[in-house]
Amino acid sequence: MSPVVGVIGGGQLARMMVPAAIALGIEIRVLAEQEGMSAAIAATAVGDYRDLDTVLAFARDVDVITFDHEHVPQKVLKGLVKAGVEVRPGPGALAVAQDKVLMREKLTSLGLPVPAWGTVSRKKELRAFLGDHGGRAVVKTPRGGYDGKGVKVVDDAGDVREWFTALDEDANGGVLLVEELVDFRRELAQLVARRPSGEIAVWPLVETVQEGGVCSEVIAPAPGNVASAQAEAIARAVAEGLGVTGVLAVELFETQQGELLVNELAMRPHNSGHWTIDGAVTSQFEQHLRAVLDLPLGDTDPLRDWTVMANVLGGPESGWMTDRYADVLGTDGGVKVHAYGKPSRPGRKVGHVNAVGDDLDDVLERARAMRDLFR
Amino acid sequence: MSPVVGVIGGGQLARMMVPAAIALGIEIRVLAEQEGMSAAIAATAVGDYRDLDTVLAFARDVDVITFDHEHVPQKVLKGLVKAGVEVRPGPGALAVAQDKVLMREKLTSLGLPVPAWGTVSRKKELRAFLGDHGGRAVVKTPRGGYDGKGVKVVDDAGDVREWFTALDEDANGGVLLVEELVDFRRELAQLVARRPSGEIAVWPLVETVQEGGVCSEVIAPAPGNVASAQAEAIARAVAEGLGVTGVLAVELFETQQGELLVNELAMRPHNSGHWTIDGAVTSQFEQHLRAVLDLPLGDTDPLRDWTVMANVLGGPESGWMTDRYADVLGTDGGVKVHAYGKPSRPGRKVGHVNAVGDDLDDVLERARAMRDLFR
Repeated sequence: MSPVVGVIGGGQLARMMVPAAIALGIEIRVLAEQEGMSAAIAATAVGDYRDLDTVLAFARDVDVITFDHEHVPQKVLKGLVKAGVEVRPGPGALAVAQDKVLMREKLTSLGLPVPAWGTVSRKKELRAFLGDHGGRAVVKTPRGGYDGKGVKVVDDAGDVREWFTALDEDANGGVLLVEELVDFRRELAQLVARRPSGEIAVWPLVETVQEGGVCSEVIAPAPGNVASAQAEAIARAVAEGLGVTGVLAVELFETQQGELLVNELAMRPHNSGHWTIDGAVTSQFEQHLRAVLDLPLGDTDPLRDWTVMANVLGGPESGWMTDRYADVLGTDGGVKVHAYGKPSRPGRKVGHVNAVGDDLDDVLERARAMRDLFR
Repeated sequence: MSPVVGVIGGGQLARMMVPAAIALGIEIRVLAEQEGMSAAIAATAVGDYRDLDTVLAFARDVDVITFDHEHVPQKVLKGLVKAGVEVRPGPGALAVAQDKVLMREKLTSLGLPVPAWGTVSRKKELRAFLGDHGGRAVVKTPRGGYDGKGVKVVDDAGDVREWFTALDEDANGGVLLVEELVDFRRELAQLVARRPSGEIAVWPLVETVQEGGVCSEVIAPAPGNVASAQAEAIARAVAEGLGVTGVLAVELFETQQGELLVNELAMRPHNSGHWTIDGAVTSQFEQHLRAVLDLPLGDTDPLRDWTVMANVLGGPESGWMTDRYADVLGTDGGVKVHAYGKPSRPGRKVGHVNAVGDDLDDVLERARAMRDLFR
């Protein structure tokens, strides 16, 4: 019989694993949070991923459990492992993705370059950090942040008053993460995949462009001179050092001096890797399935010189990307359109487009033009 | 809401439409003949496509009905149209694909080049045709043949005695199609797509290699000097002349003199177009969905100079392609593997592989090597 992969979470990352599973003849089952989600076509169960019994029932008869997101609680992850379920990435690796303080500790102990950081639980500690780092810093809640949420640039401890209040009210105590505000030239991302038996595959280093804390464009490979060997070494060290299985995205700052510093980690297919669907021999979604099933990994070479991915974010009008197809698709039949099967809301990622070619300016222009038509 | 495409038939062609539908954010529903078929992931109904009520129930709330195969009876097709369902391709076009005599009549009336042909209902008529065409001919049953079934090369009218007996026993009468045995240099296939509003998209002409009446390899584009402009003109004339919507494959003979003659037509995605999944900007499956929804068609350019598709046929041992992945995938991480989610039986098409690159010998060798590992 075909191997069976169970995916916890029904969002667009789970959705985009489905075509790869169909091509490879792998059965894919999704535990979705609710009906009608992005990955509904593969949803064999709907339920709460925070409930161990729900997840154990879903995991029965699958060969491996993997994830659409990193929010599954440790007690559920450990319960799965205890029940003999293969969980990839495992609880230990995911713990590092779930807690930004633990992430900074682990990266520091692996000797990897990170921004100056500390933990603060009181305003005066934050004031001291600000004093030591030029008067500005980034404060992050250790858990639950994504796409710019739970992240704030501050120049005064009062800027995150509510977060301190929340800490005071939390019986478990807790801390905030504070980091130096890195004066970066641009942001980069290094995508890799690692299978349990140790094989690692590395895609080209890419440039990511953020708007308002949300990824807007990815250029693959990152143009110009770039420390790609160092980026690869960092990503390999993270994957091996934390025992990550599946796809890992390492988000990096490139400083004005050309140094690389690790910003964030994602232990799953990642927005910075959506270009691989149309631009690389093996997409991150196919590779993730291969990796979590401990199968040999595929080639990561780009198909053409350049690929540009542009996210389609929901605008003020509601509707679906597909509503625009009759008007939009004819403007450029070569740009690949990906819609996530969800209605538009302002700022919501509802899809992306990929343009592939050998002239960067042309590819950039085509991706942006198509993206703009969907806005 | 997203548009909804209903596909009649749960085989691998329906299966391969699913990734394209997921990427475009189009909802796809399949009426499968039974549980557990290739397209099971999208099967929202299981039933008999020869039963109008079953098909009408399935077609409720879909925007368009299309097909995994050409076997849906005319009375069902016409019943759908009468009920107001969009059926693409429509009954008139499909009738031509369903009856090889009608196909020869239509192609002849369109002035397109075909082998010399006739109809015979008695042995002496076949003898006369053999006498006029060098003593050998191809006899075909007008209906139900595929992959070499219902096709026989004869040099004596007794070679198809059973078919004549069946005609005699058929109260509706009927005829056999007889065609000259074309002395061809090679076989080619021209894939096109046409949408109801008239737009046509044309992929490069390809060479197809058959073994025992079954497609074994496809080389895209067809190497060497080839009458590609004529092939395109033929395919456009067929698509327009018969009012085909969706993907159309025109199988062609290239004679020793370099002439093209139309062999067969397929009004759906076709084995000769599987190379487009990894080798062209727009795959035949995405294009078919665009076409039947009357959306603008995508570019058909190849991604690299050459793509070779090789079919994986079941060998003497039972099992699944996926059983071999741990051993096979590591041998060439650049060849794309497609498995149809069905167990192996001798001679059964269970999947295919695509190799893409700029050196034909290398691409051919890699596709064949991977295919052989799965045999």
